[in-house]
Amino acid sequence: MRSLSLIGKKAKLISSEIAHYSTKKKNDALKCMSGSLIKAEKFILKENITDLEIAQHEGKAKAFLDRLILDKRRIKAMAEGLLTVATLPDPIGEIESRIERPNGLCIEKKRVPLGVIGVIYEARPNVTVDASALCFKAGNAVVLRGGSGAINSNKALVKVLKEGLRKGGIPFETIQLIEDTEKRSAIELMKMRDYIDVLIPRGGASLIKTVVENSLIPVIETGVGNCHIFVDETADLEMAKKIVINAKTSRPAVCNAAETLLIAESVAPTYLPIILSELEELGVEIRGCDKVKKLFLKCKIATEKDWHTEYLDYIISVKVVKNINEAINHINKYGTKHSEAIVTQNQQNAKKFSKEIDAATVYVNASTRFTDGFEFGLGAEIGISTQKLHARGPMGLRELTSYKYIIYGNGQIR
Amino acid sequence: MRSLSLIGKKAKLISSEIAHYSTKKKNDALKCMSGSLIKAEKFILKENITDLEIAQHEGKAKAFLDRLILDKRRIKAMAEGLLTVATLPDPIGEIESRIERPNGLCIEKKRVPLGVIGVIYEARPNVTVDASALCFKAGNAVVLRGGSGAINSNKALVKVLKEGLRKGGIPFETIQLIEDTEKRSAIELMKMRDYIDVLIPRGGASLIKTVVENSLIPVIETGVGNCHIFVDETADLEMAKKIVINAKTSRPAVCNAAETLLIAESVAPTYLPIILSELEELGVEIRGCDKVKKLFLKCKIATEKDWHTEYLDYIISVKVVKNINEAINHINKYGTKHSEAIVTQNQQNAKKFSKEIDAATVYVNASTRFTDGFEFGLGAEIGISTQKLHARGPMGLRELTSYKYIIYGNGQIR
Repeated sequence: MRSLSLIGKKAKLISSEIAHYSTKKKNDALKCMSGSLIKAEKFILKENITDLEIAQHEGKAKAFLDRLILDKRRIKAMAEGLLTVATLPDPIGEIESRIERPNGLCIEKKRVPLGVIGVIYEARPNVTVDASALCFKAGNAVVLRGGSGAINSNKALVKVLKEGLRKGGIPFETIQLIEDTEKRSAIELMKMRDYIDVLIPRGGASLIKTVVENSLIPVIETGVGNCHIFVDETADLEMAKKIVINAKTSRPAVCNAAETLLIAESVAPTYLPIILSELEELGVEIRGCDKVKKLFLKCKIATEKDWHTEYLDYIISVKVVKNINEAINHINKYGTKHSEAIVTQNQQNAKKFSKEIDAATVYVNASTRFTDGFEFGLGAEIGISTQKLHARGPMGLRELTSYKYIIYGNGQIR
Repeated sequence: MRSLSLIGKKAKLISSEIAHYSTKKKNDALKCMSGSLIKAEKFILKENITDLEIAQHEGKAKAFLDRLILDKRRIKAMAEGLLTVATLPDPIGEIESRIERPNGLCIEKKRVPLGVIGVIYEARPNVTVDASALCFKAGNAVVLRGGSGAINSNKALVKVLKEGLRKGGIPFETIQLIEDTEKRSAIELMKMRDYIDVLIPRGGASLIKTVVENSLIPVIETGVGNCHIFVDETADLEMAKKIVINAKTSRPAVCNAAETLLIAESVAPTYLPIILSELEELGVEIRGCDKVKKLFLKCKIATEKDWHTEYLDYIISVKVVKNINEAINHINKYGTKHSEAIVTQNQQNAKKFSKEIDAATVYVNASTRFTDGFEFGLGAEIGISTQKLHARGPMGLRELTSYKYIIYGNGQIR
C-alpha cells in the first residue's frame, strides 16, 4: 500500500507549513470551508444517500443509520461548527513562560502544533468536518480514516472541504482522507510513526481497543464512558431523581450518559422504587443486584458483565451499596475514567468522592451529561480523553498542541 | 507469572493512598530514604561489587561498567538527590483553574498524580533512586524494571529505600522492583494496562523501540538524542568552535551531546579545518561527507547510517550544507526531536531555525548540553521526552502528574 505512506509523507511535509499560518489565514480558510459546505449541500446529500442505501441493504441498526444520516439541518450545523472554530482563540505561538537563567540563557516555552494527527472513527460523517476543523485551527495536518459505511459521505465532505481550503489559499494536503476502508489500511495507519505524531481514535470500546493494541504511534484514548451516579444516604430525593433521569435518558447513545446507578443501602427502600418506576416509564430497562430485585421485583438480575457495560441505550444497571467506600471501589473497578457523579448533601462525602474517584470528571450534585467542550467553556472538542497522559476530559484546541523550548544564548557552554 | 500482576495490583491499590499524602509527609519520607542510603552504604557497595564481578566476567564494555559502578561519592550524590527532591515544590493539589459557568456549575481543574508509573531502564543503579524519588514526590506509585546487569545493586537499593519509607510511615508498595530480569517480564509489564498508567523507558534507542512496539500502556519516549549543530555563514568562528567542542566532548555518552556538525558551504573552507583539527586533537573521530573530505583529508567518509547514528562516543559526523534550508531539512529528517543548535549572527536565520526545527529544544548560540532539568530550573528530571504528547524536553515533577475536573453543582441537568 504505497498510497498510504504517500498520504503520510504529504501530511508531514505540509504540517511544517501549516504550523506557521497566521490565525487570520486559518480563520479565513475555515469560513471558506463553511461556505463550501453550504454551497455543496445537494452533492453531499446525494453521496450520503448512497451510503444510507448500502447501510439499509446491509440491515444496519437504527443507531448506525441515525449517526450516518445527513440532512439540510445537519449540514448547516456542520457549517456553523466551522464558523465557531474560527472564533476560538488560537493557542499556537503563545509563550507559556520565559525565564532567564543565571548563566544568561533565555529559555522560552512556546506552544506549537502536534504536527500530523491521525483520526480513526466510525461511520459518522460529522466527525470528518469537526476533526478537520479543530486539527487545522490548531496548526496540524490531519489524516482521516472514517468507517467504511460512510465512505461516500466522507469523500464528498473532504472534497468540499478541500474546495474551501483552495479558496483560503491553503494546500489540499492539510486534510487527507484514507479512501481504502479495509481494516488493513487502519492497521497500517497505526504503524506510520514516521509521519503521524498522534493518533486519536473516536468511537466505541472495540475501536479504541484495536487502536491501543496495534498502534506504534502515541494514542489519546477517547470516549468510552461507563459512567456512574452514586446516590448517598443524605441525597435530596428530588435532585437525585432528576439527575439520574437526565443522565440516563436525555441522550443515551452518548459517552457521558450514565450506565449504572449506585445507591446507599439506608435510602434504597424509599428512593429506589420511586426512581426506578420513573425510569421504567421512560422506557429504560432495569438490571439490578439481588437487593435491588427485592425492592423492585420487575427488574432483571444484573450479571458481572453488566457492571462492565457501556450500554449506550435505554438500559441501566443498579446496585445497592453499603456505603461510600463500596461505591468508590465499584466505580474505580468498573469505570472507564470518564465521568462519575455523586448526589449528596454531605460535604465530607462530596470531598471524599471527588478525591478518591479516578476519572477525568467528577460531579457533585450534577448530571454526568455536562462532560462536553462547550459545556466546559472550551468550545468545540475533538473527544473526551479517558487517559491520564497529555489531556484528560474534553479536548479542545489547546489539547491538540504541544510545546517547544527555544533557548537564546551568546555562546554559553556547559 | 502471577507475581508480576500481584506487583501491579499492589501498586494500583496503594497509588490511591499516596495520591493524598501531604507534601510534608512525602518530604519527611524522602529525608528518611536519604538517611537510609547513607547508613546502608557498605551493604549497597557489597551488592554492587557482585554485579560488577559478573559484568567483568561477561566482558562488558567500559561504558557499561562506568554506569554500573557505585562508590561512596555516588551513593552520597544519590542521597543528596533525594534531599533535593524534598525541596522541590509539590504540584499535587494545585488548582489550575476554577470557573463558574452561566448555569451555576463550578468547574475546577485540579492537578493529580498519574497513578502508577512503570520505569524500564538499563543497568544504571542511580535511576532506581532518582525515578523512585520523583515518582513518589509527584504522588505516584512506581514499578521499576531495571537491567539485569544491575539486579543485585537494584535489590539492595530498593530494600534500603523501603527502609526509609518504613521510617517515614509510607507503605512498602510505593516502590516495587521487578526482580525477574528475563526479557519476558519487561514485555509482560508493558501489557499491564489495568495496573500501570504510564510507562517511561529510559535508555538507548533499542530499549525505547522495544517498549514502543510492545507496550499497551501509554508511553513517554525519552532520551534518544541524535543532536546537531549548524554553523551558518555568519557564525562567529570562536563561538562556533567552543560550542561544537563542548557539545561533542564534554560528556559524549549523554543524550544531549552533539552527534553531527552541519556547516554552511561558504565558511566551510576557513572554519572546518580549524574546528576539526581541534576535535581530532581531543580524540574525536571525524566522519565527513565528500565536501568535508576535500577540506580535511584525514577524515573517514560518512555513510547514510552515520547521519542516523547517536554515537554516544568520541565520533562526529560532519556535513557541508548549501544553506539553512538544507540544514533544517537534514535535521528534521535525521534528528530525534531532542536538542538542536544553530550558531549564527543573523537574526533571521536564528528565527527561521527555531521556528522550523521540530525538536523539544532548539538552541541559538548555545551548546546542546544544556537540555537538562537542573539547567532549565525545573530541578531533578526523570528523562528528556522526545515525543510531542504530554511532555516535551526535560520532565520534572509536574510532568509526572495529570489533572482532573471536579464539578460542583446544585442539581444541574442538561
